[in-house]
Amino acid sequence: MNHPTPPQAALMRRPLPAPVAEALQARFGDRFTTSAGVREHHGRDESPFPPAPPDAVVFAQTTEEVAEVARLCNEHGVPLIPYGAGSSLEGHLLAVAGGISLDVSQMNRVLAVNAEDLTVTVQPGVTRKQLNQEIKDTGLFFPIDPGADASLGGMCATRASGTNAVRYGTMRENVLALTVVTADGRVIRTGTHARKSSAGYDLTRLFVGSEGTLGIITEVTVRLYPQPEAISAAVCAFPDMGSAVRAVIDTIQLGVPIARVEFVDALAIRAINRHDRLTLPESPHLFFEFHGTEAGVREQAETVQQITAEHGGSGFEWATRPEDRSRLWNARHNAYFAMLQLKPGCKAVTTDVCVPISRLADCVVETERDLVASGLPCPIVGHVGDGNFHVAMLTDPDKPEELELAESLNARLVARALAMGGTCTGEHGVGLHKMDFLVSEHGEDALDVMRAIKHALDPNGILNPGKIFRPSR
Amino acid sequence: MNHPTPPQAALMRRPLPAPVAEALQARFGDRFTTSAGVREHHGRDESPFPPAPPDAVVFAQTTEEVAEVARLCNEHGVPLIPYGAGSSLEGHLLAVAGGISLDVSQMNRVLAVNAEDLTVTVQPGVTRKQLNQEIKDTGLFFPIDPGADASLGGMCATRASGTNAVRYGTMRENVLALTVVTADGRVIRTGTHARKSSAGYDLTRLFVGSEGTLGIITEVTVRLYPQPEAISAAVCAFPDMGSAVRAVIDTIQLGVPIARVEFVDALAIRAINRHDRLTLPESPHLFFEFHGTEAGVREQAETVQQITAEHGGSGFEWATRPEDRSRLWNARHNAYFAMLQLKPGCKAVTTDVCVPISRLADCVVETERDLVASGLPCPIVGHVGDGNFHVAMLTDPDKPEELELAESLNARLVARALAMGGTCTGEHGVGLHKMDFLVSEHGEDALDVMRAIKHALDPNGILNPGKIFRPSR
Repeated sequence: MNHPTPPQAALMRRPLPAPVAEALQARFGDRFTTSAGVREHHGRDESPFPPAPPDAVVFAQTTEEVAEVARLCNEHGVPLIPYGAGSSLEGHLLAVAGGISLDVSQMNRVLAVNAEDLTVTVQPGVTRKQLNQEIKDTGLFFPIDPGADASLGGMCATRASGTNAVRYGTMRENVLALTVVTADGRVIRTGTHARKSSAGYDLTRLFVGSEGTLGIITEVTVRLYPQPEAISAAVCAFPDMGSAVRAVIDTIQLGVPIARVEFVDALAIRAINRHDRLTLPESPHLFFEFHGTEAGVREQAETVQQITAEHGGSGFEWATRPEDRSRLWNARHNAYFAMLQLKPGCKAVTTDVCVPISRLADCVVETERDLVASGLPCPIVGHVGDGNFHVAMLTDPDKPEELELAESLNARLVARALAMGGTCTGEHGVGLHKMDFLVSEHGEDALDVMRAIKHALDPNGILNPGKIFRPSR
Repeated sequence: MNHPTPPQAALMRRPLPAPVAEALQARFGDRFTTSAGVREHHGRDESPFPPAPPDAVVFAQTTEEVAEVARLCNEHGVPLIPYGAGSSLEGHLLAVAGGISLDVSQMNRVLAVNAEDLTVTVQPGVTRKQLNQEIKDTGLFFPIDPGADASLGGMCATRASGTNAVRYGTMRENVLALTVVTADGRVIRTGTHARKSSAGYDLTRLFVGSEGTLGIITEVTVRLYPQPEAISAAVCAFPDMGSAVRAVIDTIQLGVPIARVEFVDALAIRAINRHDRLTLPESPHLFFEFHGTEAGVREQAETVQQITAEHGGSGFEWATRPEDRSRLWNARHNAYFAMLQLKPGCKAVTTDVCVPISRLADCVVETERDLVASGLPCPIVGHVGDGNFHVAMLTDPDKPEELELAESLNARLVARALAMGGTCTGEHGVGLHKMDFLVSEHGEDALDVMRAIKHALDPNGILNPGKIFRPSR
């Protein structure tokens, strides 16, 4: 598969009906635009696909405005694509059937911090860094960290997770309630502020991960956690990938409540060393973070140190001082940019899979073999405590054969993960890029159930059309 | 509202079509029955409603058999109600529109223990005690404990939780994958064995909590946890309910990873004392359990002891020896039966609500005032770490006015919980009994979304009809 043509380019695309443009212009004034620059910006994401700009962009500021736009689009059959921070990776935002990009980045207020309940309600455009900044005096924090400074609405839409998920769960576990605008412009609340409920269908978790295809999220209530009394970090080198991954498996199976455990392969270490002026040995590493009481953190770290030693880990290096921890984790966070510099001018085709942890070592080792044989530089990093890892395939955008090679590596990686009982995406979502793999993962009968739900909630097919699955078998 | 007539008695009820009875008889032989005793048994649960027997009962042994029954029922428009252990509390199993009760209790095999992945796959009739018995040599356990020895299929269907949820989550967080038979008899798999996924709509969590109205669960994969290295328990008396609940709030807000924290009011303590020959002071109590390393458990207990002391708690009594712990927790587990003996010959109308933890003290205190004023003995116990509590209203089955009184107390309790941002049921489910409250909780627009999903997945309305919500506004 080559990239210049997104898989859904065949979707019928017609110009924005004049009455819609006029109504939006009248209603939103400056906050409605058809300028080429803004459209172009809203028709791209971090995926390898070329941009597919919408016909127009609306900047909404309230739930009621979102509902008005939905009603208008629904009436005229105009595609409507919610847009947050633009950091998604699999083509989610591309307007493959044209229509309106509904930008909610101006809906960026923290609406209510309920410190006693350990919850917060925000508008969808609030980003995770902004949220943590605004609540830092409460002694609480929001742990989900997908790397990019994504919006909370977008993180709901893709069921994001990241480095802390091994301890704190993903968006699936941490969203308590949503306000959602339906395709026909009704405003519903899903969930309550109670921790748990058995009151009817779990609409909250249906919208989480629906990638804008079932409704538009306009408020999000998430769980917060007490900032841990103590935090420490450690880094440890391993002779090979298998040993590193087996140390993680033992740690998880022993029930050590680690807050983070990240795998970084030798190539990614080389990138990080250059980018962050570190001098880590160029071999596979694990980065750990421990949260708890002073004594608890020490105990966890000692247990893990012992496990790593049993697997040939060396140079288990502690960092309890905040500045040392930051240096280490900044390096991990910068890995994406660091890796891009391994091949000047390259673009990364990033992908993620997630497998049962017992198969993680096999999956990583077989994948590395395949990547090395390809000749493309493809560093691997991963949230290995969940069985989740990422490959960044560094391709020259002027060489279509490299993109093609990356796609074939990606396809084999997904096939390998599925054969091991895993999933084609642990946290990036489906978008355009993984639609075909969804058939292999779930089977057509389960996809038919998803299609039936889509049709029931969005009969005119206006919400982010052409994503997740094809409309029919 | 009086009880003799379940709210859905108005549903059209017609006799089982002869071709269906004949086909089932031919296919299932002895495992198909219309005997009055078996039907009566399958038309009741632990709810206050009188039995509503199905027209026939089928005992299925395989997923394919379930699919065959579904296809037949769907073709003939015959209601189909999955039946596990019969321990649900809100009328879930009552055949208010007649039809077939599909008993899956013979589907009771543990299919695969994946100890390395900390997961297990079971048939839906496996009960939680059976599961823990069968896996005990693996060093792992399944934490979800709703009190009754419910079946895993039923626990999925009602989104059950219980005493350990504060630490380990509910069925919502712990089901990884399901095999489900759809209304038209197709077999789908939802989820994979990976810990997390962003691959399409979260069908797993849609079926969890759907009370048999969207599909029939025939296999369940759940997470397991390492048996903790150390466990200790403690019990502590408080001068009043508010103090006890505030101690819990502080414990949660401090992030102490308690495994269990149960509230037991003075009346329930009296019942337990009599039933289990204990001599606890007749005042509100908290029962705690701590899981972790030896040092971790000690540290948690010390922190909690300090918190309880700050709230006037006294007699913080430790139990690290397994037999002492068992005695304590057996008493808590027997509370339901102990409470029934407070009023010989009574039946309990049990109900549960869940509120944000900041409102828990208000909710419990106001509720107690209302209960005391009613004159009915109504002990309160609760999984207070989640903001969830139960009231057992002890009514004389020969006095309809007591049932009516219990219903009005229940209605006011739910209204109070909803006004505080909570939910009408934290873990029992909706069934027949809480349908009307669902409208207040979610609003008709959100219920319309649920109805649309129901119609999309079960267009002939055969799956457990008359439960959760009315078919139209």
